[in-house]
Amino acid sequence: MTRHMPLRAMTTALLVATAAASAMANTTEERLDRGDAVVRSLNQGQPQQVLERMRQEFPFLAEATEAYALGDVWSRPGLDNRTRQLAAVAAFAATGQTAFMKVHAGYALNIGVSEEELKEIVYLITVSAGFPRAISASQTLSELFAERRDTAPGNEAPSP
Amino acid sequence: MTRHMPLRAMTTALLVATAAASAMANTTEERLDRGDAVVRSLNQGQPQQVLERMRQEFPFLAEATEAYALGDVWSRPGLDNRTRQLAAVAAFAATGQTAFMKVHAGYALNIGVSEEELKEIVYLITVSAGFPRAISASQTLSELFAERRDTAPGNEAPSP
Amino acid sequence: MTRHMPLRAMTTALLVATAAASAMANTTEERLDRGDAVVRSLNQGQPQQVLERMRQEFPFLAEATEAYALGDVWSRPGLDNRTRQLAAVAAFAATGQTAFMKVHAGYALNIGVSEEELKEIVYLITVSAGFPRAISASQTLSELFAERRDTAPGNEAPSP
Amino acid sequence: MTRHMPLRAMTTALLVATAAASAMANTTEERLDRGDAVVRSLNQGQPQQVLERMRQEFPFLAEATEAYALGDVWSRPGLDNRTRQLAAVAAFAATGQTAFMKVHAGYALNIGVSEEELKEIVYLITVSAGFPRAISASQTLSELFAERRDTAPGNEAPSP
Amino acid sequence: MTRHMPLRAMTTALLVATAAASAMANTTEERLDRGDAVVRSLNQGQPQQVLERMRQEFPFLAEATEAYALGDVWSRPGLDNRTRQLAAVAAFAATGQTAFMKVHAGYALNIGVSEEELKEIVYLITVSAGFPRAISASQTLSELFAERRDTAPGNEAPSP
Amino acid sequence: MTRHMPLRAMTTALLVATAAASAMANTTEERLDRGDAVVRSLNQGQPQQVLERMRQEFPFLAEATEAYALGDVWSRPGLDNRTRQLAAVAAFAATGQTAFMKVHAGYALNIGVSEEELKEIVYLITVSAGFPRAISASQTLSELFAERRDTAPGNEAPSP
Repeated sequence: MTRHMPLRAMTTALLVATAAASAMANTTEERLDRGDAVVRSLNQGQPQQVLERMRQEFPFLAEATEAYALGDVWSRPGLDNRTRQLAAVAAFAATGQTAFMKVHAGYALNIGVSEEELKEIVYLITVSAGFPRAISASQTLSELFAERRDTAPGNEAPSP
Repeated sequence: MTRHMPLRAMTTALLVATAAASAMANTTEERLDRGDAVVRSLNQGQPQQVLERMRQEFPFLAEATEAYALGDVWSRPGLDNRTRQLAAVAAFAATGQTAFMKVHAGYALNIGVSEEELKEIVYLITVSAGFPRAISASQTLSELFAERRDTAPGNEAPSP
Repeated sequence: MTRHMPLRAMTTALLVATAAASAMANTTEERLDRGDAVVRSLNQGQPQQVLERMRQEFPFLAEATEAYALGDVWSRPGLDNRTRQLAAVAAFAATGQTAFMKVHAGYALNIGVSEEELKEIVYLITVSAGFPRAISASQTLSELFAERRDTAPGNEAPSP
Repeated sequence: MTRHMPLRAMTTALLVATAAASAMANTTEERLDRGDAVVRSLNQGQPQQVLERMRQEFPFLAEATEAYALGDVWSRPGLDNRTRQLAAVAAFAATGQTAFMKVHAGYALNIGVSEEELKEIVYLITVSAGFPRAISASQTLSELFAERRDTAPGNEAPSP
Repeated sequence: MTRHMPLRAMTTALLVATAAASAMANTTEERLDRGDAVVRSLNQGQPQQVLERMRQEFPFLAEATEAYALGDVWSRPGLDNRTRQLAAVAAFAATGQTAFMKVHAGYALNIGVSEEELKEIVYLITVSAGFPRAISASQTLSELFAERRDTAPGNEAPSP
Repeated sequence: MTRHMPLRAMTTALLVATAAASAMANTTEERLDRGDAVVRSLNQGQPQQVLERMRQEFPFLAEATEAYALGDVWSRPGLDNRTRQLAAVAAFAATGQTAFMKVHAGYALNIGVSEEELKEIVYLITVSAGFPRAISASQTLSELFAERRDTAPGNEAPSP
């Protein structure tokens, strides 16, 4: 996880800025800017691919995701980001929406949540939504963990 | 919240005991004891009414709730109790199971989560499961908050 | 359960007749007749109240329930009635539709399924859909069992 | 339905104003105003009770419902209001959220959708989500129809 | 869309015939014929592939889909076909059943609903079922739109 | 089905042993052993692949599945195995969890349930959860039936 340290420092700086902007964001443009900052703070400084792909064909959905979901809701200061991501992972696992769970579990890892903590959410889901939902979630997390290991700096294919 | 202080101290003591018992609980009897300790640590030292009512007519369900759900899952040490309760609240709100959300939101308040933090989970649900699920959850939380205010020590009816 | 014996004999006779009619029912009128026979075979010879209440304001829904759901599907001979009712109870419990679960659990009791067998379905639901769905289902079954005990012949209020 | 005529005329005027405002609403204040206009256009000129009750305890949820759900989404010009309400009724019926279905079915009646058209949505739900969801929806619509008949001008209790 | 004009004319003719048949269809054979006419009126004169594949292994399901779902429900005259398809698209999007949403969105396009109107249904789903359901629906619609562009007459591979 | 006869005999023996063990299993080790016996009795004497893959990365989930879901719930004597599997198939079909439905439908076939009986569960789902859930379930069963035919002894590729 140490490889993410500089990003996490950057994330913290962005979050501080975001929280400050939160009270005053008022126009759609300001809300979109705030949403963009939230995505980058969660996504290692990168834009979110699913969101970018919607922009051309579903412009209102892209704008609503950025201005409302990310800019208004995810930027709220009343809950720390770790708890919010873990709660989102639990909600997506319980409703069987594993593709979205994967995105938010990735964000959680990016901001310092451990793989073990994500597994605990899965164990909890056996109680609240049954074993199949939990097993599906575990399979999705296994994919995510494997993908991140494959693309981690130390695992790059050796250059010739 | 100060009125819960002694209970919270007791809770902490119970949780330490629980975590210690966790590694070694092996027989069904030990698992049931651990589940009972978990309920009391979350429920102000009281047994859980829903669970107690199931004992006679649905004995296996009561035992499974106590030994597996509470004794095995909720007693795990890998996640702090606040995060676990908030994740459970999110999962129940997202799936529209407001009666169970109410129970776990009450546990959350008992162990020191604030009303404001529970509201943030509801705000998050507008994004992950839609406005109707969030509005239903808000109505259930309002009921819970009102019930607890009514039964708080300072609000007792004046004796004649 | 002995008090249902004559009804069960009647039920069997109706089911035989139903199965015989099954292959040849072709017009909407014949399908409606078959649906009516199915309801009475499951409901102690009585019409189904929910269905009757729909007739005036939602005539197509009442007709579709009687001709398709009951006349076409529930009258099929390839599965015994006990298994079909228990499968329906499982499906309704897993999707949280407890009001409909109650109706079909009542039918199941009427045709000789035991309370213990219905409880086993609830225990199964802890695995397939989680503890809250199972606990809700157990509460609904407890209501049903109590209502039937209250109205059983031996429990009638003494006449003066 | 003739009793709603003046309201419908008012509604039309509001909708024209709303559509004109739609392109330029940009600040949160403008979006809230637009949401308020949408509610009144759907709710016979009245504020929405559920929304009003949320304002004190869940201010962000009330604001998000008014600014985003009503102000941004429901005010969009690309779909006529009748179709949008019927689609919302279908979505709520299919997901078993009958309380919200009732609100939107009431809006639909307010803007001139007939009871018969709402019943057709219920019939459709037998196919897309099963008979129990359709039957539940029919029961909720029956309640709504009865409540509106009770409060219609011609049904007022005779004054002495 | 002009390329569908002859088909739409044919569709209209079929619908008129269907509506006329509606009142008198009574035998299973007549209901199946009516269902077949409905499919062809929605599917550019072609049979429905999913339905055809079920005929051999699940004959009752194929018959019930054709006679009940299509012949009884979809052929009803009380709602115009555009509204019915948009309501079905909303119900499928809200319940996360994107494969079925795709089929009905295709039917909607075939009978003259615009891509823009389908997008409005998706925007509505952010409110009624959350952003993930809406985003999934948008991805499915993007696939559908792309497939139809690829197979449109003007986009055929040039013959040598 | 005759090819499974020896396995079914073995299954019966295992089930007798399982039922006997049921009353006294008390330690986690005994519960795991019982779960392992249940899986093998349902899965032609083999371990369950999904379960095995979870053991390394999600050890608690694997243990809970084996000790609780299989060892405690599926081993209970109060319901015959055929009914339990058919009820589980109904619950999974109704909630759209087709991957888990496939596993349990396979178990059902292994213990002597016929393909025709599984189809009847699918027909029932049209009523309780709608046509799309039933059609999805039919497609999954068709896949399962085809896979089993391909790997049946008589269908082996001829050796040279």
